[in-house]
Amino acid sequence: MDNLFIDLGTGRTTTERLGESDLVRGGRYATAAIVQRLVPPSADPLGPRNVVVLAGGPLAGVGLTSTGRLSVGGKSPLTGGIKEANAGGTAGDSLARLGWRTVVLTGRRPPGERVLVVVDESGAHLRPCPELAGLGNFALAERLRAEYGSEYTLVAVGPAGEAGLAAAGAAVTDIDFRPSRFAARGGLGAVLGTKGVKGVLIKRNGRRRPPGADSPAFREARRAFNETVRVSGRSRALAEYGTASTLAVVDHLGGLPTRNFSRGRFEGADRINGDALHELIQARGGDGECSHACMAGCVIRCSNVVPGPDGRETVSPLEYETLALMGSNLGLDDLDVIARLNRLANDLGLDTIEVGATLGVLAEAGLARFGDGARFEELLGEAARGTVLGRLVGSGCATAGRLLGVRRVPAAKGQAFGAYDPRAVKGTGVTFATSPMGADHTAGLTVFADVDHSSKEGQAELSLRMQVARAAYDGLGLCAFLQSAVGSRPQLVTELLSLLWGVELSPEYLEALGREILRVETNYNRAAGLGPEQDRLPEFIQDEPLPPFDWRWDISVAELRAVAEELAGTGEAARNPRSRP
Amino acid sequence: MDNLFIDLGTGRTTTERLGESDLVRGGRYATAAIVQRLVPPSADPLGPRNVVVLAGGPLAGVGLTSTGRLSVGGKSPLTGGIKEANAGGTAGDSLARLGWRTVVLTGRRPPGERVLVVVDESGAHLRPCPELAGLGNFALAERLRAEYGSEYTLVAVGPAGEAGLAAAGAAVTDIDFRPSRFAARGGLGAVLGTKGVKGVLIKRNGRRRPPGADSPAFREARRAFNETVRVSGRSRALAEYGTASTLAVVDHLGGLPTRNFSRGRFEGADRINGDALHELIQARGGDGECSHACMAGCVIRCSNVVPGPDGRETVSPLEYETLALMGSNLGLDDLDVIARLNRLANDLGLDTIEVGATLGVLAEAGLARFGDGARFEELLGEAARGTVLGRLVGSGCATAGRLLGVRRVPAAKGQAFGAYDPRAVKGTGVTFATSPMGADHTAGLTVFADVDHSSKEGQAELSLRMQVARAAYDGLGLCAFLQSAVGSRPQLVTELLSLLWGVELSPEYLEALGREILRVETNYNRAAGLGPEQDRLPEFIQDEPLPPFDWRWDISVAELRAVAEELAGTGEAARNPRSRP
Repeated sequence: MDNLFIDLGTGRTTTERLGESDLVRGGRYATAAIVQRLVPPSADPLGPRNVVVLAGGPLAGVGLTSTGRLSVGGKSPLTGGIKEANAGGTAGDSLARLGWRTVVLTGRRPPGERVLVVVDESGAHLRPCPELAGLGNFALAERLRAEYGSEYTLVAVGPAGEAGLAAAGAAVTDIDFRPSRFAARGGLGAVLGTKGVKGVLIKRNGRRRPPGADSPAFREARRAFNETVRVSGRSRALAEYGTASTLAVVDHLGGLPTRNFSRGRFEGADRINGDALHELIQARGGDGECSHACMAGCVIRCSNVVPGPDGRETVSPLEYETLALMGSNLGLDDLDVIARLNRLANDLGLDTIEVGATLGVLAEAGLARFGDGARFEELLGEAARGTVLGRLVGSGCATAGRLLGVRRVPAAKGQAFGAYDPRAVKGTGVTFATSPMGADHTAGLTVFADVDHSSKEGQAELSLRMQVARAAYDGLGLCAFLQSAVGSRPQLVTELLSLLWGVELSPEYLEALGREILRVETNYNRAAGLGPEQDRLPEFIQDEPLPPFDWRWDISVAELRAVAEELAGTGEAARNPRSRP
Repeated sequence: MDNLFIDLGTGRTTTERLGESDLVRGGRYATAAIVQRLVPPSADPLGPRNVVVLAGGPLAGVGLTSTGRLSVGGKSPLTGGIKEANAGGTAGDSLARLGWRTVVLTGRRPPGERVLVVVDESGAHLRPCPELAGLGNFALAERLRAEYGSEYTLVAVGPAGEAGLAAAGAAVTDIDFRPSRFAARGGLGAVLGTKGVKGVLIKRNGRRRPPGADSPAFREARRAFNETVRVSGRSRALAEYGTASTLAVVDHLGGLPTRNFSRGRFEGADRINGDALHELIQARGGDGECSHACMAGCVIRCSNVVPGPDGRETVSPLEYETLALMGSNLGLDDLDVIARLNRLANDLGLDTIEVGATLGVLAEAGLARFGDGARFEELLGEAARGTVLGRLVGSGCATAGRLLGVRRVPAAKGQAFGAYDPRAVKGTGVTFATSPMGADHTAGLTVFADVDHSSKEGQAELSLRMQVARAAYDGLGLCAFLQSAVGSRPQLVTELLSLLWGVELSPEYLEALGREILRVETNYNRAAGLGPEQDRLPEFIQDEPLPPFDWRWDISVAELRAVAEELAGTGEAARNPRSRP
């Protein structure tokens, strides 16, 4: 198992054999370690010294469910710190089968050039592709599918990434070659785009296998693992309603982003929640699917395919975060409008969370009316046209807020909140404030814990626990939705790792891995100038109680600092594992 | 001598008697100390917790030349750190004569409201002024002059400040009630504007006097001081050519910002330098003046009045920084065009340095052609109209660069460079990188030192020395142009302070004062999240040699860190005054 480096300036590749300890970690561990090694903390995120790391996990490619996520890492143009965003689709499995744990893109093409990076067993080469410049993700995927068939996975950079817009993500194709699984957050699509990369094609169905992949013991463990996940309650809920089922939960808690985070419940929630989406898909038939897998062999199948009124696919998937940020947050209660906005963002290659939050800030500034879907579609059209207004739409809500003089800007470290108002879901608010990833719910979501989310009690500890757990999963390429099924039994995961790679691991390995990732990331950020003083939420969160329940943000700076110290590896529990609760 | 606090929410005022040590310091010392005391480092610069401090110096109002500058301080929306900007005009003298060392504006009006703050001997009161909302600075001054005569000094907030644009400054009226002496930098006009303050009227000609003001010893010292300044060589050069004389110097060094800092010499320099301006003013007659005083009694008279082709005043003053940033930096070699751009910026209340740099970035992004003055006038017109494009023009070059995806952005800590390319004038580059003020030439200009500015030798020490000297002057309300006349004789200043206030001071007082100001500011910034990692210049400065002499930036990070440590008070010389060179 190797890391593959390609210098975009020259096309030269080098490889590096993984040491034994690196065999059993990848994903976000690999992105953190390689960015720390190669990118000076002072580097301009859109300059030549930044790199993009694509990394799969050590359990990918061998028929385990939900283990093939692709981590994309680099220095973020949104936060100015280290960033990892991961996506489903087929890239993680494909990389593993080629024998590459990571593909690392260094340097850049001369301005204006576009290349495809084509990766197979033998390495990688650059293919100039001026003819693809400016293509939307859907047209790009269609063109490349026609040329390469389905033998490749595509990591696609849309026009937003090419234009260097800080809200641009990277899109990974799913099992149907749909470029719609997004490593969305942090602007890594802009890093790829400004390097001149229009796409990375990764050959599928390579033949490399970890040493233990064909042993009877592993096969049995794999069968048991997949079955455990399949029968878990949350997996079944996800299969039926997808992540959209979360909307009613968060609305109930009074933490659903509504009209630019000015309320926590939305009067139109019933029209855009999981039930409504399920009904719409079932009633329309056609291309619609309530349950769909983004990776081969996934038994959770949380994804969906949403048809328009004519039964033809509008978008896939439509997720909770998008329903909230591009729905309730914009005062929109029409699933077709939200689905169209989502498709537009996907085609441009923009993060729906960041753009939804930005459109909310624009509405607050008077550039749109909440509830006016046509206007929001028009604003995304401006982004497609590359106007100044369009660049504003695609540059993230923090920049938009600064430019427009809006105080109610839902961002931490320059990145938009996920779809959980910190005042109502306080543990996730702690994550937003302290995570080295900036405000990012995937870095430590707490909403499914059985606690009083509006009480400050225990939220700092809960956030820390979830941040460690999520970092560990991200460091193994695991889907977060495995957590409810096997999160309490880390030995199920370490056993699989041991059987595959012949490395003995204790069940404590996961926590140690999660902490190590967070330590590297947090200290990188400190060297980049993101100190503990930046571990905070915007002032409006402290100043405005959140209607209708008037939830108030009451987590102290000292509590946030304590979490940050743990993340940096300088806290009590980080230094002394035996003192951990 | 008191500080006067006014709560903008309630209109209530309180006063505070100065302690003995504070009698002999004010200006930037007072802004730093009061911001540190009142503004939490995490405060939103445009939120209710920020304050604006207006502070005069301890030598103001008693007939000394060039001692009546007004410091304006607060937390900056551009840098996110502490900020002081100071201006000439009549405010500093007026405050002193009322017995107020500072006027401190806390809290804010409800959104949309506008007030005038009227200050006299008895205190301050708020006067609602909805009828003045949106008025340009010139119309505002005209209206208030009609009402108040010339009995008041006006600190004016233009439409840019009202709109919260981060490049907005505060304009102080000169002896002719022209609102054109700018506390320009750092966006403090936006802080005033978002608090609802449209202007501060300060009664002139109060009768308060420092205890020693009428002693024969002070009178004699005053006469000698004014005469020393009057006969100094640099004063005479400034009187004849104003600061415009600097243009030829910096062009000669190859450090004149040209077409967005892509060159250091400008082919049109001869058409916009001090000689050209002098000739134009002399040839046209009319309202023109080559030498004009901004404060009563100033013997330097560096200011000028620039007439248009019809002999009527276009702008006063036209300064070197504007000639460079709005001239060569935009490829413009027509003094009339530059003067008109300057007037437009003054009317809006925008910092010409920040806006000039921003227009350069816009041109780099293709939104204007270098040399196309009409287009730049049009872009300032957009700012006046408050469009998205106009807000981009007024939000500072760092935000513009981020939005437009431009890498060549001449800013440090979010604020545009003054008119000295760091690669050619390296000591000033060290100041840009390390000053707690962000990139700000007034915080430590080195260009008049007799050194090789393109060599790195001794530049860090030179910058530090100038930063300390400038902070001391700013802390006393002194004009920087006193430096060449009396800078080498600090005892001339301390003697005046001692005679006026009856406080014994040694000549070392100035250096100690400068260091104390920098220590407070630097440590405030660290608490606000601007650590030493932010003490750097943008990547393009390191990556691109500057034509035509191919000057390279070669000051090391370690040298910058050493300066930052001295500024923070933790360096060797700061801790041990006897070790100072």
